[in-house]
Amino acid sequence: MASRTVSVAVTGVGLVGSEFISQLLSLATPNPFRIVALSSSKHTLFAPDGLNITVNSWKESLAQSSAKTPQDLVQDLSKLVKPGQDVVFVDNTSAENIASLYPSLLSAGIHVITPNKKAFSGDLSLFDGILSSSAKSGAKFLNESTVGAGLPVISTLKDLVATGDKVKKIEGVFSGTMSYIFNNFSSGEEGGPSFSSVVAVAREKGYTEPHPADDLTGSDVARKLSILARFIPSLKEKVPLPQGYQSVPTTSLIPAGLASQSLSADDFVTRLADYDAEFDQKRSEALKEGSVLRYVGVVDLEQGIVKADLQKYPKTHPFATSLGGSDNIIMFHTERYSPRPLIIQGAGAGAAVTAMGVMSDLLKLI
Amino acid sequence: MASRTVSVAVTGVGLVGSEFISQLLSLATPNPFRIVALSSSKHTLFAPDGLNITVNSWKESLAQSSAKTPQDLVQDLSKLVKPGQDVVFVDNTSAENIASLYPSLLSAGIHVITPNKKAFSGDLSLFDGILSSSAKSGAKFLNESTVGAGLPVISTLKDLVATGDKVKKIEGVFSGTMSYIFNNFSSGEEGGPSFSSVVAVAREKGYTEPHPADDLTGSDVARKLSILARFIPSLKEKVPLPQGYQSVPTTSLIPAGLASQSLSADDFVTRLADYDAEFDQKRSEALKEGSVLRYVGVVDLEQGIVKADLQKYPKTHPFATSLGGSDNIIMFHTERYSPRPLIIQGAGAGAAVTAMGVMSDLLKLI
Repeated sequence: MASRTVSVAVTGVGLVGSEFISQLLSLATPNPFRIVALSSSKHTLFAPDGLNITVNSWKESLAQSSAKTPQDLVQDLSKLVKPGQDVVFVDNTSAENIASLYPSLLSAGIHVITPNKKAFSGDLSLFDGILSSSAKSGAKFLNESTVGAGLPVISTLKDLVATGDKVKKIEGVFSGTMSYIFNNFSSGEEGGPSFSSVVAVAREKGYTEPHPADDLTGSDVARKLSILARFIPSLKEKVPLPQGYQSVPTTSLIPAGLASQSLSADDFVTRLADYDAEFDQKRSEALKEGSVLRYVGVVDLEQGIVKADLQKYPKTHPFATSLGGSDNIIMFHTERYSPRPLIIQGAGAGAAVTAMGVMSDLLKLI
Repeated sequence: MASRTVSVAVTGVGLVGSEFISQLLSLATPNPFRIVALSSSKHTLFAPDGLNITVNSWKESLAQSSAKTPQDLVQDLSKLVKPGQDVVFVDNTSAENIASLYPSLLSAGIHVITPNKKAFSGDLSLFDGILSSSAKSGAKFLNESTVGAGLPVISTLKDLVATGDKVKKIEGVFSGTMSYIFNNFSSGEEGGPSFSSVVAVAREKGYTEPHPADDLTGSDVARKLSILARFIPSLKEKVPLPQGYQSVPTTSLIPAGLASQSLSADDFVTRLADYDAEFDQKRSEALKEGSVLRYVGVVDLEQGIVKADLQKYPKTHPFATSLGGSDNIIMFHTERYSPRPLIIQGAGAGAAVTAMGVMSDLLKLI
């Protein structure tokens, strides 16, 4: 708990990575962190005593550097770990080959912080390796920003469980893209835009993945459920899903007729219009019951359900009244927060808020 | 960051204190904490190597012990502080004389965790003493549960500020009592119960202080604003309130005619009915504008306002649509969370959730 200087290695210089580096270099002085490594897939800067970079200079410095294999970087960083000298590896990529380094990093006593969800959706042995190497060395693995970006979702769940509360149900809109699509498609009013047109607008606004089908599979929501599920030890008895929840039942919104075809993003959105009537019908059916459609993730310990699914919610439900934009909303129903849940809501995607989630994990280490 | 045993001294054995002791003794093994002291205003148990108590036995053990002055307890605890041996003082009272011990505890290197708001509303020198002694010794002062109980309000504000976000406005229903009263009094429908009857029901349900006037002054909300305000360094330039925000402009709901009288709680509620017409009128005026009444706390850096006040919100606003029971709701409008705010909602009072807030502060220390 005493103050010390913490060495930070940052991998990934995309939107989140760049924003994170800015936030890190802009911390109030005295800055307790020094950046010892900065790397992309093609370049690596490394200096054991701290890189001499600024918010304005790091991109150019990085561009002038040569490459180093991730394995070599792990070696170099391992040598910096000493008593009272903490080293943190921040992975701002979404790369599987970087996620696969976590066990060796943690074994070497290097803390790992990441918004990268790949460690949770890949092979279970990777996740087990993370847990066991972290337990052995005492190095921390923190991933607040994998769910809800900067929103305090994982930390709240951890607090609930650690302080002895009993989670009954977690229910939420976990995908900013799905939130935007259904807030606009199913607002609770008669009529409304077609499904394909809403998806097209979401794509134009940059709210979807490059290929919107990657959002409509629901797999992003499923991955977030996998992550949350692993923080609830009692879930195993209630919902013994195989493989440690690395795949949960997921309803894809991609029409069956388009699922098997490898269409370009443009073609996909065009062809999606052929299925607008199906989505219209679902919307009308919901409206007849006084409900709206929302694509949600559910972890229900009482009913024994973990799933990512399209569901109906009454127009008076917070998922209908309170949601807007591309907000996430997450409700925790617990023994203590009962009958009314603990609710967290806000932007759950975007570089600034994701980098903030990574940064607050980093600040928790000191 | 390495694991170590942490010695905990717990003062206060009321509802929150008892619940906290239960939570602490029920932590998953290996329990990283040992309780070295347990005290009430009349009794003190102390054992440097840890008390031999269980969830079922501690009350009896405590009842059989004699008293120790708080000052003597501080002395005894100070001797336990050694490198690698952390000592935490948990104050679950709402006593001013215990709050006044914080500077000497912190100076001795003892961490302080508390839901007690007295350190923020009393003399400014006490708060300054807390800050300076904590800074000098490195011992932490954590008070998550002073605002929103177990809800992650202070930690979220700290994260926003620490990671470089700019807070524009914090607005919320911070009092569970005020929440219950106005959710029921001003639901957005025509008519509704009288103000005094709602206050009477809130009192019967145990949602108010023993004397409901203590809630209606708004001072609880004001104190919470004082606490939040101190975590926003840039506020000083925008709203330079005197005395470090220990008093903020506050609208009392106690009718002028009752303010100067020292009525019993029973008489107060009876006499409050004489003013029902005034509250009715406010409710009708709001309804004419399509609004409801809510008693809120506001920290507005753009308009330069910090205040606890009764305000009108449109019936479509989350303070109207999403609130229920005695929930707190807090909206953070920031540069990153803009135009849509980060929202946290849920029960903001009660022994279980307050103790949980204290416990999660304690877990953050290790």
